[in-house]
Amino acid sequence: MKNIYFTLGPSQLFPGVEGFVKKALSEDILSLFHRSPKGQDIYQSATENLKILLNIPKDFHIFFLSSSTEAMEKILENCVEKNSFHFINGAFSERFYETATELKKKPLFLKAPLGEGFDFTKVKIPSNTEVICFTQNETSTGVALNPNDIYRFKKLHPQKLIAVDIVSSIPTIDLDYSMIDLSFFSVQKGFGLPAGLAVLIVSPQAFKKAMELKNKGLNIGSYHNFANLQHYALNNQTMETPNVLGLYLLNKVVTKMLKIGIKSIKQHTDKKAKLLYDFFDSDKRFEPFVKDKNLRSKTVIVINVQTDSQQIAEKLATNGIIIGTGYKQLKSSQIRIANFPAHNLKDIKKLIANL
Amino acid sequence: MKNIYFTLGPSQLFPGVEGFVKKALSEDILSLFHRSPKGQDIYQSATENLKILLNIPKDFHIFFLSSSTEAMEKILENCVEKNSFHFINGAFSERFYETATELKKKPLFLKAPLGEGFDFTKVKIPSNTEVICFTQNETSTGVALNPNDIYRFKKLHPQKLIAVDIVSSIPTIDLDYSMIDLSFFSVQKGFGLPAGLAVLIVSPQAFKKAMELKNKGLNIGSYHNFANLQHYALNNQTMETPNVLGLYLLNKVVTKMLKIGIKSIKQHTDKKAKLLYDFFDSDKRFEPFVKDKNLRSKTVIVINVQTDSQQIAEKLATNGIIIGTGYKQLKSSQIRIANFPAHNLKDIKKLIANL
Repeated sequence: MKNIYFTLGPSQLFPGVEGFVKKALSEDILSLFHRSPKGQDIYQSATENLKILLNIPKDFHIFFLSSSTEAMEKILENCVEKNSFHFINGAFSERFYETATELKKKPLFLKAPLGEGFDFTKVKIPSNTEVICFTQNETSTGVALNPNDIYRFKKLHPQKLIAVDIVSSIPTIDLDYSMIDLSFFSVQKGFGLPAGLAVLIVSPQAFKKAMELKNKGLNIGSYHNFANLQHYALNNQTMETPNVLGLYLLNKVVTKMLKIGIKSIKQHTDKKAKLLYDFFDSDKRFEPFVKDKNLRSKTVIVINVQTDSQQIAEKLATNGIIIGTGYKQLKSSQIRIANFPAHNLKDIKKLIANL
Repeated sequence: MKNIYFTLGPSQLFPGVEGFVKKALSEDILSLFHRSPKGQDIYQSATENLKILLNIPKDFHIFFLSSSTEAMEKILENCVEKNSFHFINGAFSERFYETATELKKKPLFLKAPLGEGFDFTKVKIPSNTEVICFTQNETSTGVALNPNDIYRFKKLHPQKLIAVDIVSSIPTIDLDYSMIDLSFFSVQKGFGLPAGLAVLIVSPQAFKKAMELKNKGLNIGSYHNFANLQHYALNNQTMETPNVLGLYLLNKVVTKMLKIGIKSIKQHTDKKAKLLYDFFDSDKRFEPFVKDKNLRSKTVIVINVQTDSQQIAEKLATNGIIIGTGYKQLKSSQIRIANFPAHNLKDIKKLIANL
């Protein structure tokens, strides 16, 4: 019996991935030269299919990086001369802020308690802010911000750039990319793929800002600065030798998702999320960490538990069910469960039955 | 019939890699959480086995990155406040220099014609140089520098750091790591693995330099600065979710190479290189690009051809033999052939018979 992985990433593989890996072996994808016509085809196809699946405007750039952590660095290097503003309510939004500090920018932040959102109406963004950074779906706590609250900042500050971490909500979150300048995710979460590849989506306005910083003679990084990324992207390549297998598999999964239909995948996600929250809300041994139902992530479900989370996880593991424990300081008092497109209804029911 | 890949990377898979990938699938490595005990075991084992295979001193750091191109960036960010010095004789040594320029350092260089080496005895390194950068094996031209010529600079300038690109000569080059502070390679060349993972080897002296720059308050990058890399390495982890499959496969191949014995792999490489050069030296249609036999790479064999290289490559491809053409401006007038541990004697003989 195969395990079912409800971990937050790497997680359960999207159905078909094993077959795609075997197909990659038989097609010699692991030896494929990334600058060959076939290598370029994979790059182009992955880019085009992603744009269709996620409804990304044609004039936006899709860049391939190695991790979402890298994406934070590249956003700050390329689009922030000095001032970024960060909404922090968990470990990953904190990391985004810390990255700015390490890169010697002058980041400001507004902090909300773990498991909570922000009173956005009261926030005043300083006029010199260049990029406003959000973590739409906090993988550490399971808080999901309403995208409309994010768009509001773009409408109020059209000259500023909006950067959004969509690592664990993609592809089942509805986003209006015309309201977001920079967004990023890695493929080992919602796409159900092996780790080692990330996608950065860049608006023309954000790209222009990077070119302005470059022309000013500032350091915007080297091989993965936006100028180099775009220069190679025009030939469906990267400057470095990329994770070719990762690109191949991403294209396969996106193609399959297009066939299934993103609407159906989203409905399926909603249904599974409802099942999970209904169960946890009704069982006294459990308590969803996020009290405000409007802020509860559909894809990252974080639950306070009474017994040690490690014990629960170990017991489930004996039945082939692998879940995550709480993040860092909440490790022993919480369990975390992924509800990604790779998880089917039967898996969710099995998890609930075993809890 | 399977193709044989003599391309420079990605290249022929090391024997057994297909099986290792299938084993990874059956062991759920593609869903494995990188911070789990099993994830940490893979990291630790890969590090320890690499140190044994390559005879790397115990107190050196092994860091995992995504590409050798990234390694160039990280070396310059972490170890150069202002001044690097670059020996340039091809596209990859040029890229190392360009990376320093992009990062707003003040690099100097000495250039040799393509296909040639340097008169090292005449070189004067400016006293303010922090890192001296070499490309030991130029993948674009097939020139291999004698490691003793590199060590000479360390002996003359023990306070300066020596950085060496060993991308396409590892693991079959003999290196004395105590004479090298920073070296790097990616796994899709000599290790015969899929692309998307690179290794950076850092001496205690180079690590100390990075901490000095950090303590000065300089920007040494974020998630992949040496401080963060080391902080996570102590727990056999990376800050970002890494290419877990890549790490797993690297460990498998290194373990297999340890069983075969690195000495035997090196002798095998020498034998195959001799076969190839003897053939090309004796056939008037071909001429090794590197005239000085002492500078000829054993792993990257670059040959001037009379007919268009693309025609030769296409003809070979019809017989299942895939070779590289010349790099950039030398694309049509040269062929490039990899002689990596993955290539066996029979493959080399088949290539020669088909040329």
